[in-house]
Amino acid sequence: MARIVMKFGGTSVADIDRIRHAARHVKREFEAGHEVCVVVSAMAGVTNQLVAYCQSAAPLHDAREYDAVVSTGEQVTAGLMAIVLQDMGIPARSFSGWQVPIKTNDVHGSARITDIDATDLVARMGDGQVCVITGFQGISANNRITTLGRGGSDTSAVAVAAAVKADRCDIYTDVDGVYTTDPRIAPKARKVPRISFEEMLEMAALGAKVLQTRSVEVAMAQKVRLVVRSSFDDPDADQVVSDDPFYNGPGTIVCDEDEIMEKQIVSGVTLVKSEAKITLRGVEDHPGVAAAVFGALAKEQIVVDMIVQNVSDDGLTTDITFTLPDSEYEKAIKALDNAGDELSYQSISGSKGGAKVSVVGVGMRSHAGVASSMFKALADKGINIQLITTSEIKTSVLIDEEYAELAVRALHTYYGLDRKEA
Amino acid sequence: MARIVMKFGGTSVADIDRIRHAARHVKREFEAGHEVCVVVSAMAGVTNQLVAYCQSAAPLHDAREYDAVVSTGEQVTAGLMAIVLQDMGIPARSFSGWQVPIKTNDVHGSARITDIDATDLVARMGDGQVCVITGFQGISANNRITTLGRGGSDTSAVAVAAAVKADRCDIYTDVDGVYTTDPRIAPKARKVPRISFEEMLEMAALGAKVLQTRSVEVAMAQKVRLVVRSSFDDPDADQVVSDDPFYNGPGTIVCDEDEIMEKQIVSGVTLVKSEAKITLRGVEDHPGVAAAVFGALAKEQIVVDMIVQNVSDDGLTTDITFTLPDSEYEKAIKALDNAGDELSYQSISGSKGGAKVSVVGVGMRSHAGVASSMFKALADKGINIQLITTSEIKTSVLIDEEYAELAVRALHTYYGLDRKEA
Repeated sequence: MARIVMKFGGTSVADIDRIRHAARHVKREFEAGHEVCVVVSAMAGVTNQLVAYCQSAAPLHDAREYDAVVSTGEQVTAGLMAIVLQDMGIPARSFSGWQVPIKTNDVHGSARITDIDATDLVARMGDGQVCVITGFQGISANNRITTLGRGGSDTSAVAVAAAVKADRCDIYTDVDGVYTTDPRIAPKARKVPRISFEEMLEMAALGAKVLQTRSVEVAMAQKVRLVVRSSFDDPDADQVVSDDPFYNGPGTIVCDEDEIMEKQIVSGVTLVKSEAKITLRGVEDHPGVAAAVFGALAKEQIVVDMIVQNVSDDGLTTDITFTLPDSEYEKAIKALDNAGDELSYQSISGSKGGAKVSVVGVGMRSHAGVASSMFKALADKGINIQLITTSEIKTSVLIDEEYAELAVRALHTYYGLDRKEA
Repeated sequence: MARIVMKFGGTSVADIDRIRHAARHVKREFEAGHEVCVVVSAMAGVTNQLVAYCQSAAPLHDAREYDAVVSTGEQVTAGLMAIVLQDMGIPARSFSGWQVPIKTNDVHGSARITDIDATDLVARMGDGQVCVITGFQGISANNRITTLGRGGSDTSAVAVAAAVKADRCDIYTDVDGVYTTDPRIAPKARKVPRISFEEMLEMAALGAKVLQTRSVEVAMAQKVRLVVRSSFDDPDADQVVSDDPFYNGPGTIVCDEDEIMEKQIVSGVTLVKSEAKITLRGVEDHPGVAAAVFGALAKEQIVVDMIVQNVSDDGLTTDITFTLPDSEYEKAIKALDNAGDELSYQSISGSKGGAKVSVVGVGMRSHAGVASSMFKALADKGINIQLITTSEIKTSVLIDEEYAELAVRALHTYYGLDRKEA
């Protein structure tokens, strides 16, 4: 017997039929003797409608009222899921965030969970009841509803799993796991049976839109084993998630690195398109200069991505290059033009239409030469590299957007990630 | 300075534009220096959609989950109303039923309010804040959301008004007040400036769908003065509700009988169509026989309306006639057929397609002969009366449905209720 948290996203509960289908997954686990908590998102499209109402009511609106409005979507799904489960003969009841309670700070619209009192949930599961909990929301110390920001239901599920000390947290979504890369770009992409938290974090942050980054952070910190899997599967098929190190069951297990026997050098290739780059040449090279550059951008709410600073030739000035979404390009140029006295540079240049391609893998730590082999693989295809950044388990390059898909496929093949033909 | 509760129904908050229009009414009262609580319904159509979801999830569903689902409609409106008011520069915040809290019993789906803690609301109004409260819902002792049954937002508003000791409770709706009869039937119907609680109760129960009956009962018990008025009016027009006994301002004041100077003998004429009648002849005339008849019907959830029992000719048997909605006719006949030994009668007969026409007025108490004059007015038009029931301030007759509109117009004219031509 295990204790499982099962989370269903918006497309998995898009209408009553989909909720019923999701409930059959719950039934399978429940009837296998497991203790189950369910965490649900709003029905697909509902949150967007509620956000549009708030926007229409007033473009600048009180985040506390926004939270009161948009949190209703999950409440509807939770009630309906409980009804459907009961109809299948499974004792179930719904909980809104404030009923659990899921306590958060009071940063409305993007609150953080501070504490979950799981006493009641654990007792009810022990009595054979399924607890259906609204994702995405909580309650602040002054008794107001908060929301965790878009995609926050993943984080709710992980936090509930940590609070009830669940054996695992199953994230049901519209894909059947984490892939080595986007299958629409590389048809030979294959599902990864296991991936480490660190790799998943890099993959999530780099554009694999399977899990909300924050939820992976919480799972890693709280040691909550995640399974990313499809709610569209046949709920009655064999669905056992096992601890077998050569696991090849449903979904992808996201777990501690220690639990992964055969570490791939590279686990996945990710792509982010529409990246602009901006280069400041001849920036005075003294302490605080980077802070001046990126402070000017932060003031305009511009989030930058890659940052590269070269050693200067003369020891007096340096060049700084960074990337950001194409859509922010003009705004960023203007912000730097207006930065004034505190920021002195000789010239500013840049261009839109870049693509960031990255290879991710914990195996990089122990294998030298991943970066150089990556550059060679790209050079072999005649792809020019504009920028390079590296971290412990990731190497990213900025290239011309035209070559993006070619680069992804080339690297996917080069690192042996291609699915073997049947 | 007064303290006012303003309630807006579903059509008055049907979309963002209507919410904005309703908010202008709030602004008018707020800027006149009044303390204001607002009570809102769900946007028109939303509750029906949520009910349909529950039905679709399972025809027989847990009323507690139903309440969790359908209560979200009001939460959305309350948040949006607060946003719109803030956008107009009015300090406002929303409250769900559980946040106030509005405590109820645990009869989910048709709960009764047991207590409202108004401390926070009163303090906030004193600080110049408008409190926007969800109608229709509350919280039970075991921390679950309850709803008051359809139309319950009127009752919420009245209960909040009683709790905060409001000077009046304005019910904004899609008609501009209580009419002497349905203007679609009698074009000369006119708005009543004042009506007593008792009359309003009879009118509401008899088919004037302006106010939920329960809300009038609570208002009468708690001495909450109601004003029924239109949210579709120009919010900036002169809208002062006064205590002038010859008041002729916006809406209809529903108040204590003592506050009405000129009591009409008849204040209104009401109509309920599609009434079936069933007659049991030769029922054994002994104590408990009525209980046996209506117990058999109650067991099938059939609500009867008029009941007439005549003295028997022979002292041994009696005839009982009652009315009920046409749609329940066959079910009722079957229930009585199957009632078995406890109920003995010689024959059962009945027919569908009746209409109940009633005249209502507190003046009846002091004026003899209202009933007989009513019968004469109908006889003058050749309308046959099938059944008669009377109460202290009401006389009702059952007639053939074909004559329903003719009867309403005839009585409306006869009792001097017709609007004078301009």
